[in-house]
Amino acid sequence: MERWKRIDETAGWRDILRREPEALRGALTPERVASRTLPAGGGLSYSYAAMDVDDGTIALLASAAAELGLVGQYRALASGEVMNVGEGRMVLHHLARGTPCGPVVKDGRDYRAFYEGERTRAAAFAAKVRSGELRGSTGKRFERAVQIGIGGSDLGPRALYLALERWAAERGELALRASFISNVDPDDANGVLSGCDQETSLFVLVSKSGTTQETLANEALVRAWLGRKPGVDASRHIVAVTSETSPLARNDGYLDSFYIDDYIGGRYSATSAVGAVVLSLSLGPDAFKALLDGAADADRLALEPDPTRNAALLDAMLGVYERNALGRPSVAVLPYSQALSRFPAHLQQLDMESNGKRVDRYGRPVAIPSGPTVFGEPGTNGQHSFYQLLHQGTDVVPLQFIGFRKNQSGFDPEFQGSTARRKLNANLAAQIVAFACGKDDGNPNKAFPGGRPSTLLVGDELDPGALGALLAHYENKVMFQGFAWNLNSFDQEGVQLGKKLTSAVLADGGPADPALAAYARLLGAL
Amino acid sequence: MERWKRIDETAGWRDILRREPEALRGALTPERVASRTLPAGGGLSYSYAAMDVDDGTIALLASAAAELGLVGQYRALASGEVMNVGEGRMVLHHLARGTPCGPVVKDGRDYRAFYEGERTRAAAFAAKVRSGELRGSTGKRFERAVQIGIGGSDLGPRALYLALERWAAERGELALRASFISNVDPDDANGVLSGCDQETSLFVLVSKSGTTQETLANEALVRAWLGRKPGVDASRHIVAVTSETSPLARNDGYLDSFYIDDYIGGRYSATSAVGAVVLSLSLGPDAFKALLDGAADADRLALEPDPTRNAALLDAMLGVYERNALGRPSVAVLPYSQALSRFPAHLQQLDMESNGKRVDRYGRPVAIPSGPTVFGEPGTNGQHSFYQLLHQGTDVVPLQFIGFRKNQSGFDPEFQGSTARRKLNANLAAQIVAFACGKDDGNPNKAFPGGRPSTLLVGDELDPGALGALLAHYENKVMFQGFAWNLNSFDQEGVQLGKKLTSAVLADGGPADPALAAYARLLGAL
Repeated sequence: MERWKRIDETAGWRDILRREPEALRGALTPERVASRTLPAGGGLSYSYAAMDVDDGTIALLASAAAELGLVGQYRALASGEVMNVGEGRMVLHHLARGTPCGPVVKDGRDYRAFYEGERTRAAAFAAKVRSGELRGSTGKRFERAVQIGIGGSDLGPRALYLALERWAAERGELALRASFISNVDPDDANGVLSGCDQETSLFVLVSKSGTTQETLANEALVRAWLGRKPGVDASRHIVAVTSETSPLARNDGYLDSFYIDDYIGGRYSATSAVGAVVLSLSLGPDAFKALLDGAADADRLALEPDPTRNAALLDAMLGVYERNALGRPSVAVLPYSQALSRFPAHLQQLDMESNGKRVDRYGRPVAIPSGPTVFGEPGTNGQHSFYQLLHQGTDVVPLQFIGFRKNQSGFDPEFQGSTARRKLNANLAAQIVAFACGKDDGNPNKAFPGGRPSTLLVGDELDPGALGALLAHYENKVMFQGFAWNLNSFDQEGVQLGKKLTSAVLADGGPADPALAAYARLLGAL
Repeated sequence: MERWKRIDETAGWRDILRREPEALRGALTPERVASRTLPAGGGLSYSYAAMDVDDGTIALLASAAAELGLVGQYRALASGEVMNVGEGRMVLHHLARGTPCGPVVKDGRDYRAFYEGERTRAAAFAAKVRSGELRGSTGKRFERAVQIGIGGSDLGPRALYLALERWAAERGELALRASFISNVDPDDANGVLSGCDQETSLFVLVSKSGTTQETLANEALVRAWLGRKPGVDASRHIVAVTSETSPLARNDGYLDSFYIDDYIGGRYSATSAVGAVVLSLSLGPDAFKALLDGAADADRLALEPDPTRNAALLDAMLGVYERNALGRPSVAVLPYSQALSRFPAHLQQLDMESNGKRVDRYGRPVAIPSGPTVFGEPGTNGQHSFYQLLHQGTDVVPLQFIGFRKNQSGFDPEFQGSTARRKLNANLAAQIVAFACGKDDGNPNKAFPGGRPSTLLVGDELDPGALGALLAHYENKVMFQGFAWNLNSFDQEGVQLGKKLTSAVLADGGPADPALAAYARLLGAL
């Protein structure tokens, strides 16, 4: 008998498919808002009052989660089982911030100790840079940290930095500003470098393998740029974050090196050294530690077997219901916080790269739709953009709202009787209800159908602890959904073919494929 | 007889629905790449070789376009007919950059002359600021232009500014840097202002009605901030872009005012004074004029009745085929240019706010799916993120690639035998072919199904002319799709309910709706 099932193979699946979405007009009461909420870690609450599911549907989803052993699979993963089956690897990103299921020791290495050791090394390094004890090669203090990385080495750390930049600045903790270079398009690096000074810039080169094409090309460009300033020694302006077996490890070309390994996938690596170095430099080691504590808190909550007490698991199951029973192919992430401007882009990678798969862990077609399309922008901006389609389009898009009761910044004068913060959150409350309940109108163009479901993650303030919990909530949600679809959420074979064909274009003699050559010629790449 | 049809009411619709997607493996030849290309304006070419449609499908789509009179509807629109039927307004954004169908004169006003007059006033104003003739209230030169606006007053101008910031800087033309404040979240304004100096900052307040809640709240915050610096006179640091009937017009509280009107919708307003002021200040009046010329070029090409000679029309019809015949609910916009980092966010608004509608121009249900979900990020970044789903997910997402043969910036040293630019474009060519043709593999997890269609807009360099054409191509594409679905692409009734409920939360005594009150309380807004 096979160990894992797909959700469409569970006993209650046909019953789940038969459930009608609950009509929210009428059902959405203050009592429901009060009762359908549970802690999500780091002081956050998860509210699902505005989801179009009744208690019967939730009970069926809970049964399916139990039959699939979703929490058991998480326990296995966090305990060090080889849950990245295709690549034969453990999946240990939870160990970067705690031990939800105890220590993981393999071949003499205690992984929690290893990751925590790299974090404390990064913290000590950052403290020296922040204090001015460690300076650039011409004796000037470092003022800017520039991460060079792409994908998971970029999106997560960038989203987290932007989320806390203002928070740290308001507290006088933003000792270095951070910037990010990712795209192989040289206009990216040149744009960032135009705002930097060679003498005061510290680069954090992040590539697990040490062979990422875009990242190495950007490193070369940065080294050439550093070399333009007489007296600057590039090797004292770049640190590496890489695996111990990479060509970048223990290499005199770098000021220092910090280590990760193959048990933490790129899109799950923000809490490892991939995020630790740049975030400890810019926001401070204490803020980064508090972020990890928030993530560990969410990881602990995700062990609860009852979905109505496990926000990540419930969010995952509600998402599967929307995707598979109601046939909704997209999800919008809508943070009412400008600081989370790039958080949807991180979640887009996290979700779509993890669960955008056609083949299950046994190599069979998934049979039902798997990972959805994920997109989003901060509210209120989105309200003046794509919300038109969300309210009145022909497709229903489930919504994931995020909100906070307080600002990060202190300056918020009243205008027309309310602060901007109060206006922001009044908008968020209004949108939840407008989407859920709609409005009749004699003019069909002015009618709102309602029945557009949403969840809400809400906290007091976007501080490091709340941010860490938010990050881990989504990591765990995506993990549970991958288990439910019986996918391997931890590989990304879909990126390989493009790499191979790119190499063919760049190889001597050009590509054998005539269509590829034609496109390369059209683009001036041959 | 009704004047307009929906595409599902055309004679050939059943035949279109019966067309199978063309298998691209085998069909994608160099000859096809050479022949399936047409000019898109501003030096751009539109290539549809990698679309999964054969010539028979294209002929059917061309017949439908003719039967629907799509180009005739565009002619009517650009000639000043009331094509925003629900609101009883003309739709004149094409007039901001030319007269594709001749002048439009109504009630004694020549609209081309009016819009062009505002552009030249903005140009003259910008020239005075850029030269230092016009300075801040304490005598210092303005160094930064900060646009305050939301939705169409933000996304388009912001995307265009970012697209040309490097281009202008490389030419020594970036006289003022531009920033943008949009969100009512005070962390947005405070974040932007933390990088500004009162004495050298010039704000461009953009609100057509002069009553946009978010924008007025941000203006109040900015005025309070300006007032913190002794000697600074706020009224000499803010210009208004608004309609002539708004409270902001001819108001002594502003240094100057520039005008738009109700015939240019927000999401179509980037080429009007909404974009003219901030872009002329930052990039220079000549660059903005060149952008308009590129847009006008694309507008002229969009008059061609044969879709195989009209890039915007063909793009529109291919999109309708993907959406309605093949049932594909999303579109990804993938510019291989870091400078276009926010262009997908602009297109997201343009498309989803225009065509995310359930009701046609006769108030009937649209009956078939209308506007798709639009998302995107620059390549190569996206390759390391959501491309996994695009290659191997269970849904097919049609792709819209954009590429250029040259950089904007000059610094691009060779590394491992090629420049970064060549690497970038080798990646783009490789992706098109990988998506189209896929790859077999004995391991199903490593197989690529292919059959993932894409279009390509390609030019020599992202300069103002190419950017203007790119912008207008998409405006015209969205317009043609709206005509095909018989929608009003120029209203946005879907934003009204949220505004109304927000006011209810902020009103004395709070909202009557108990669920709304419960959410407002949960969020600290009551």
